[in-house]
Amino acid sequence: MMKVGILGYGNLGKGVECAIKHAPDAELTAVFTRRDPASVKLLTKGVPVVNVSEIENYKDKIDVLMLCGGSATDLPKQTPEYAKLYNVIDSFDTHAKIPEHYAAVDKAAKESGHTALISCGWDPGMFSLNRLYANCILPEGNDYTFWGKGVSQGHSDAIRRIEGVKDGKQYTIPVPEALEAVRNGENPTLSTRQKHTRECFVVAEEGADKAKIENEIKTMPNYFADYDTTVHFISEEELIRDHSGIPHGGFVFRSGKTGWDNEYNNIIEYSLKLDSNPAFTSSVLLAYARAVNRLHNEGVNGCKTVFDVAPAMLSPLSDDEIRAHML
Amino acid sequence: MMKVGILGYGNLGKGVECAIKHAPDAELTAVFTRRDPASVKLLTKGVPVVNVSEIENYKDKIDVLMLCGGSATDLPKQTPEYAKLYNVIDSFDTHAKIPEHYAAVDKAAKESGHTALISCGWDPGMFSLNRLYANCILPEGNDYTFWGKGVSQGHSDAIRRIEGVKDGKQYTIPVPEALEAVRNGENPTLSTRQKHTRECFVVAEEGADKAKIENEIKTMPNYFADYDTTVHFISEEELIRDHSGIPHGGFVFRSGKTGWDNEYNNIIEYSLKLDSNPAFTSSVLLAYARAVNRLHNEGVNGCKTVFDVAPAMLSPLSDDEIRAHML
Repeated sequence: MMKVGILGYGNLGKGVECAIKHAPDAELTAVFTRRDPASVKLLTKGVPVVNVSEIENYKDKIDVLMLCGGSATDLPKQTPEYAKLYNVIDSFDTHAKIPEHYAAVDKAAKESGHTALISCGWDPGMFSLNRLYANCILPEGNDYTFWGKGVSQGHSDAIRRIEGVKDGKQYTIPVPEALEAVRNGENPTLSTRQKHTRECFVVAEEGADKAKIENEIKTMPNYFADYDTTVHFISEEELIRDHSGIPHGGFVFRSGKTGWDNEYNNIIEYSLKLDSNPAFTSSVLLAYARAVNRLHNEGVNGCKTVFDVAPAMLSPLSDDEIRAHML
Repeated sequence: MMKVGILGYGNLGKGVECAIKHAPDAELTAVFTRRDPASVKLLTKGVPVVNVSEIENYKDKIDVLMLCGGSATDLPKQTPEYAKLYNVIDSFDTHAKIPEHYAAVDKAAKESGHTALISCGWDPGMFSLNRLYANCILPEGNDYTFWGKGVSQGHSDAIRRIEGVKDGKQYTIPVPEALEAVRNGENPTLSTRQKHTRECFVVAEEGADKAKIENEIKTMPNYFADYDTTVHFISEEELIRDHSGIPHGGFVFRSGKTGWDNEYNNIIEYSLKLDSNPAFTSSVLLAYARAVNRLHNEGVNGCKTVFDVAPAMLSPLSDDEIRAHML
């Protein structure tokens, strides 16, 4: 059994806990939190909730520590810090800062003899894998990534910061015509506006100026101004009833050529449709925790990504079994 | 530059030759054939065509030998045999015999210190990878594989063996309603007939009994009897004009659950739409040849499959580059 620790008990940490429940070869050792442990109620019976200040006490009891904090401020500090004590895995998703994060984690993990894996989940993660595989097979072609339909936390937060907004949710939606053009091998050049639309469900405070809110959303630079955005004002009850989930998903395409004179078209498409973004992300994390544990047991240290892990390492089955049944 | 040899210059061998042309880091050293070398005309200028009896002479000039023969009779002999002399890669696709083939190749490669990779392409190959990844992420769920729309060589051959048939092509087609049910998370139980239909284009010999041919096709055990099959009689000109290509493709789905009580549905879908089946298969082979060559240079011997290869090994780019641009 692989002994797993969780640092941070939000949606992602809870997702890891659920994934462990359904894994044949993993058990939850402890959950670490910055909050008062007494205020944190786990789903799993008999597992301790421990203040993060005591995390060093578990050094010999945990094979892999799952870092379930956020990419903005938590993980840039936590992953290098805890790679000194544990084999770690995170879902760092600030694409532009990955090289910097990698370097910091690699240094800490190598110095302490641990194994780390960063930027795991679905994007970065499974989508990255599909981009890489498809580019290696079809060196000449175009990549397309679409996100949604799904809830963007960043855009929902941006709506909620507007004066007069009590609550809100934002869905990112791929433009169907753009998907079809890519799927048909048309290799379109797509602007930001042509790829995705944004749909907002907003609960306004009593007496708030709805026209002003709508205008502020639609003209917000970076977040909404470059998109066709729809704003719906709804009641708090409707928001809770219809928009409490955190579904997400998306599409990765490679449209590429083969043949002596590039005479053949090929479309590789990978897509995800997820009822719960964090539950899926944490299921990917747990599969890769298995690989981190194995790599560590084989003496491989330092920082890795999904690109460095042979797929067989993710499976609880033996190599003989997967060759016989999945190849 | 990786120096590549090709054994067998049919559709697959020619596809490898085309893939090499478009690869930044591979060059074709020689093509080996059982035919009279003078009868084989390559697309690449200045590369020798050599009778297979002289293959040993190239021992120091080739990094990876691509075995481009058939799975029925060629590869079970060739892959173990040539793994004694070269690092090899094949597209062995008789799923049920993979364990046996693996054992024979592994023994030969280990004894001679070579690196082999078997059952590479898209199924087995990319489809297998997607089955494995998706099963590791979603341990509870159902797998679905659909093939087509595309030309099945085996079924086309079966048609051509019927008395009175001059030529013919068979397309395997997924049933759209079955695809939709899977995509919608309905987790249907599908019979053979419910998953695929078969469409045949047949050129009858002059004076042949078309009703008899059609009946023989539709009732042929294993090949057609379990499917809804359509038969079209067309002229030889029409067959050549409209059905000379070898397109193929297909879909791999995992429909699985996440959440504490499996309350969330998730659909992972991977699909391929290929103008030329052999050109794509050989592009996958060449990407994996890169990995075989690297594994050999790292001292890893024996037989491998796509499950054992870290994705980064397939790329001509450095680890830094792929982390920065594809993660």
